[in-house]
Amino acid sequence: MLKEDFTRYKKLYRENLFDNVIPFWMTHSLDKRNGGYYSCLKTNGDVYDTEKLIWLQCRQVWTFAKFYNEIERNTEWLNIAKHGADFLEKHGRDKAGNWYFSLQEKGAPLIQPYNIFSDCFAAMAFSQLSKALNNENYTRIAKQTFENILLRQSNPKGTYNKSYPGTRELKNLALPMILSNLVQELSHILDETTVKDQLTSVKDLIINQFYNADKGIIVENVGPNGEFVDSFAGRLVNPGHGLETLWFLMDVGEKLKDPKLIEKCANIVISTLEYSWDKDHGGIFYFMDLKGNPPEQLEWDQKLWWPHIEAMIACLKGFYHTQNPELWQWFVKLHDYTWGKFVDEEHGEWFGYLSREGKVTHDLKGGKWKGCFHVPRGLFNLWQLMDKLEKMQEKKVPIAQL
Amino acid sequence: MLKEDFTRYKKLYRENLFDNVIPFWMTHSLDKRNGGYYSCLKTNGDVYDTEKLIWLQCRQVWTFAKFYNEIERNTEWLNIAKHGADFLEKHGRDKAGNWYFSLQEKGAPLIQPYNIFSDCFAAMAFSQLSKALNNENYTRIAKQTFENILLRQSNPKGTYNKSYPGTRELKNLALPMILSNLVQELSHILDETTVKDQLTSVKDLIINQFYNADKGIIVENVGPNGEFVDSFAGRLVNPGHGLETLWFLMDVGEKLKDPKLIEKCANIVISTLEYSWDKDHGGIFYFMDLKGNPPEQLEWDQKLWWPHIEAMIACLKGFYHTQNPELWQWFVKLHDYTWGKFVDEEHGEWFGYLSREGKVTHDLKGGKWKGCFHVPRGLFNLWQLMDKLEKMQEKKVPIAQL
Repeated sequence: MLKEDFTRYKKLYRENLFDNVIPFWMTHSLDKRNGGYYSCLKTNGDVYDTEKLIWLQCRQVWTFAKFYNEIERNTEWLNIAKHGADFLEKHGRDKAGNWYFSLQEKGAPLIQPYNIFSDCFAAMAFSQLSKALNNENYTRIAKQTFENILLRQSNPKGTYNKSYPGTRELKNLALPMILSNLVQELSHILDETTVKDQLTSVKDLIINQFYNADKGIIVENVGPNGEFVDSFAGRLVNPGHGLETLWFLMDVGEKLKDPKLIEKCANIVISTLEYSWDKDHGGIFYFMDLKGNPPEQLEWDQKLWWPHIEAMIACLKGFYHTQNPELWQWFVKLHDYTWGKFVDEEHGEWFGYLSREGKVTHDLKGGKWKGCFHVPRGLFNLWQLMDKLEKMQEKKVPIAQL
Repeated sequence: MLKEDFTRYKKLYRENLFDNVIPFWMTHSLDKRNGGYYSCLKTNGDVYDTEKLIWLQCRQVWTFAKFYNEIERNTEWLNIAKHGADFLEKHGRDKAGNWYFSLQEKGAPLIQPYNIFSDCFAAMAFSQLSKALNNENYTRIAKQTFENILLRQSNPKGTYNKSYPGTRELKNLALPMILSNLVQELSHILDETTVKDQLTSVKDLIINQFYNADKGIIVENVGPNGEFVDSFAGRLVNPGHGLETLWFLMDVGEKLKDPKLIEKCANIVISTLEYSWDKDHGGIFYFMDLKGNPPEQLEWDQKLWWPHIEAMIACLKGFYHTQNPELWQWFVKLHDYTWGKFVDEEHGEWFGYLSREGKVTHDLKGGKWKGCFHVPRGLFNLWQLMDKLEKMQEKKVPIAQL
């Protein structure tokens, strides 16, 4: 039965990607007049806002370049990636090479470069596109941006940091988490020692400091030595973030040939899901408080598309590596919830935001934080993993206990 | 029948204030060891976080000082107000006299003074307390803080402003809105011309620029000349904010002897409620988009305590001035929703946050944004207005059409 499962899911993800998701962005997102992409798109694809968020511009460049590099040499995809990269190259940076947070439709800067993740996604985009085109200019942009990230990493917000220095120092998960993926993405343009050192350092940091062994989950902020800090930020859990981190780290484990890391991550996937699954209505909570206090975020109990697709990848990757049946069971549970709630077969792409009870709260497919990224990347990863599992079955490689 | 209604509501509000709300804060919020107040309190009053937000410290000082000044010379209330003021005077400001955004439990600064509303609520608190004690030092703090607000008002966020200058200039409602109340609060320590000029200027700004006559609502952000700007910020509607502004402006109308302003505001109360009332589940939406697009805020459809109590004040004040029966009908509808959903007769105070469907989402009575302010101020205002209406009825002053 199981091989049929792999085949069935593989077909489903591939078809949803090709028939439902890629066409949505190809049809609705290109700004042919001004360059770049629209990301604020209603359910049916209509543009409802023209702001160009650097995160989402970069992520769409990355997605189309990645698919050109790894699925097929489709020049239409390559042209879409270049269309975004041209706009970004022309308008995206200040004079010091920092990436703005957002631009207006024609490219004039709207929001200052206060957010280091704009730079992270820019490095990711230009590095992936440089692979497609062997373009030295794109390689240079990716490298310079990466070097700038490393320079800024001790105080990423710079003068926009509102914390009073010294009272309550906290380290945040997001940058090491993104680096654990970004360094792998850039491995073809960085020297091998840098790659190995960076990956070793971020995985140690995350596992030794951000992983809370008592609760079996990854937290968002810790004290200077990884200690728990009893404050809103110190108690904050973002389960989707943790789950995304865990599959990044499983890939780091493959790269560093560290099967223990992979096994550890696979186990934390299970404990994270046990911790964050809504027993009453299904789905993964957006935010939680480590001590069970009321979270600061009003939207804490909403169900968002990206934690669910990242959770599916984390489960399936963990299952591929460990064949632990609990991961397969969680995967099926997540798939059923996700497929029933987020997928929009009528208009393409997925809904992004549900109430706790699972009702769509936002009539959109894209906005200031949702663009052409998590869904296509997720479907691609899930399809590839199902393909590997299918091949393992064909070769009679044992998939234990099922 | 109507006089009995006024009497019944008056009794209800007074009793809820005295038996249910004031005791909650007196019992649970005082930090007797370090000074100041705890505001992060669970449903039952337990402290779940010790951060001291300047907004909430100031607002609690104001509430207890106000009640001492206007309800009764209760020295316990006065001591509670002084308890907060002492802590604020000692720890609240940087060297330039700007008010921090938050402090840790013992008073060390946590978040820099990026937020001008900390200063607004500090001026309000010290001014009200100076009235109680005739204390020159408190008067001086209130005055200096007010002058500082006026100096900072053209760029309130200072170096923390992330907008790139010149691309899309927007004016925000919040500061003129708060000034329309603060200047009245400070009228005993400002000269008469300043009071009159400031109030005239802010009411003109709000009515001529932030009021969108097409939709009959007040918006949060407009262009330099009051024009509509088609962006997330330009389309943003916060109905509770609008309704609170409207009762501030009715008081401005009384002060400036401008009955037309009062009548206009009373009419906008009705159109705002028609615009923002959730026809499916009842209650006022937290955020809306002027063009009906999906709002940026994930929590847009939640129902919060403060818009409902501010809406009740706006309706009842409008009804008191105009005797328009539509305002009474809206008042009754709001009362019924609010009393059924937010009041917690078991533990005291009110719940703060409901889902769209009206279910409590946060097990708390106070947090980073909810403290000892909207509920007691609202109950006091409603009680006083019911008392005035009752007296009008006794004197046979006609209350038209009912």
